[in-house]
Amino acid sequence: MLYLIGLGLGDAADITVKGLQAVKSCSRVYLEAYTSVLTGGKEALEQYYGKQLILADRDLVEQGADEILKEADVSDVAFLVVGDPFGATTHSDLVLRAVNAGIPYKVIHNASIMNAVGCCGLQLYNFGETVSFVFWTETWRPESFYDKICKNRTAGLHTLCLLDIKVKEQSVENMMRGKKIFEPPRFMTVSQAADQLIQIIERRRSHGEEVGVTEDTLCVGVARLGADDQVIRVATLGQLVTCDLGAPLHSLVVTGRLHPLEVDLLRLNAEPNALQNLTMIDSSTYTS
Amino acid sequence: MLYLIGLGLGDAADITVKGLQAVKSCSRVYLEAYTSVLTGGKEALEQYYGKQLILADRDLVEQGADEILKEADVSDVAFLVVGDPFGATTHSDLVLRAVNAGIPYKVIHNASIMNAVGCCGLQLYNFGETVSFVFWTETWRPESFYDKICKNRTAGLHTLCLLDIKVKEQSVENMMRGKKIFEPPRFMTVSQAADQLIQIIERRRSHGEEVGVTEDTLCVGVARLGADDQVIRVATLGQLVTCDLGAPLHSLVVTGRLHPLEVDLLRLNAEPNALQNLTMIDSSTYTS
Repeated sequence: MLYLIGLGLGDAADITVKGLQAVKSCSRVYLEAYTSVLTGGKEALEQYYGKQLILADRDLVEQGADEILKEADVSDVAFLVVGDPFGATTHSDLVLRAVNAGIPYKVIHNASIMNAVGCCGLQLYNFGETVSFVFWTETWRPESFYDKICKNRTAGLHTLCLLDIKVKEQSVENMMRGKKIFEPPRFMTVSQAADQLIQIIERRRSHGEEVGVTEDTLCVGVARLGADDQVIRVATLGQLVTCDLGAPLHSLVVTGRLHPLEVDLLRLNAEPNALQNLTMIDSSTYTS
Repeated sequence: MLYLIGLGLGDAADITVKGLQAVKSCSRVYLEAYTSVLTGGKEALEQYYGKQLILADRDLVEQGADEILKEADVSDVAFLVVGDPFGATTHSDLVLRAVNAGIPYKVIHNASIMNAVGCCGLQLYNFGETVSFVFWTETWRPESFYDKICKNRTAGLHTLCLLDIKVKEQSVENMMRGKKIFEPPRFMTVSQAADQLIQIIERRRSHGEEVGVTEDTLCVGVARLGADDQVIRVATLGQLVTCDLGAPLHSLVVTGRLHPLEVDLLRLNAEPNALQNLTMIDSSTYTS
């Protein structure tokens, strides 16, 4: 049996009881380590489970799936994913390979940023399509997520923005030379994401375009959601450029039309300054 | 402290280790029992926790919040919610009352239908706005969810449809007479939801409207997601009208534009007949 087990969002104790039982029963336990991170990392989990974990980087999952699935038809193998196994990233390929090899699989769900973000006060059924921000390079500066955010806002919907994670990435130079030297991990911060959005807005303005998001648009920056030291910062996009929400992971929400009950909950997590802005900016867009 | 604890989607063992520890430490434990249900119900949970639960119906949560929060400033009280506490339903009012009463609160997240639905093979970031289906009455037959589904489909997005739950509802007659007699609980099935959609489609057609969803639109019916006996049925909307997915809870997904990898995963859960339909219907809408 292949178990795909969600670890949730906080620390080792956020695994479900069912998930923990499965981990303890498995002969090999892989930890997917390139789409998210958990407080404490691999060592904290190993100590918690009393079990060694095998780090599964992108190479192993995408090219070494056979290794992960080896003997999973006669023994149990666990594949641990921060959040939910079918959350932001679906490990479709691994599941398909298991099925094709006649290996049964079982999913043990957990919280993911896709649903836990509701704790900021915005209602999940008022969210539109989720978007992903990627780190820009000199030559590659995609803006498609901006248009999706605007489209959501036009429909009155909030947008969850998942921020880029670069783990075990090679520089172009090292890749060209075939050198397996990896850059230090990078996690996009809310501040970086806000800055990217504002650069897009300024570029669009300079081309005479009307912009659907501005420096005054109300946003929510979240960091380490579900962990004891989680931060929820309600502020304008402009204010978020200079915020420091600390260690990863960060996510950003660009709000759409706000319901008064959403505003009441946002207030709980808003900085005094943001509160003022909140009242000023959005009073015209309230719906009852 | 007020703990808002998600129970996840399957059975008692789907609570997180952190959540279980909190439940065990609380002096009073409430179980929210009107927006969702868990396999086994209250009794199974009480046995699992070794603790009595207080059933919190809509009346208690909406009008008796003070009772729930009583002494939560000096002792710990848990409020258990099937799924995630901020999933499909936000218990905003309870949180706001706690904060206003100076009672700290802590959220322990878990899986919700909003993220776990990803296990059917459709990618979560290809979902648009979530909609809710309600049981129609003689005089009240809302159709607004249909237009939202069409809007999502036009944008290529899937739609998660949450299906109505009626727990402890009074008949109009008993309500008028002030009699606290409650109807048996009702849970909308995938079959009922599909039938409702088709009635809307037929009505719109009879008015000469072009319809954005048809009997041939590929859908996914899910039942008891996360439980051992979960069912995922991939079929056309027309086929789902006659399906029987068994005990509650059910949810429906109306697909948008499909990615080949999504199709590969849908195939795993498709009935032989649906597979044929799948290939025939959606080959024109594949994107690479």
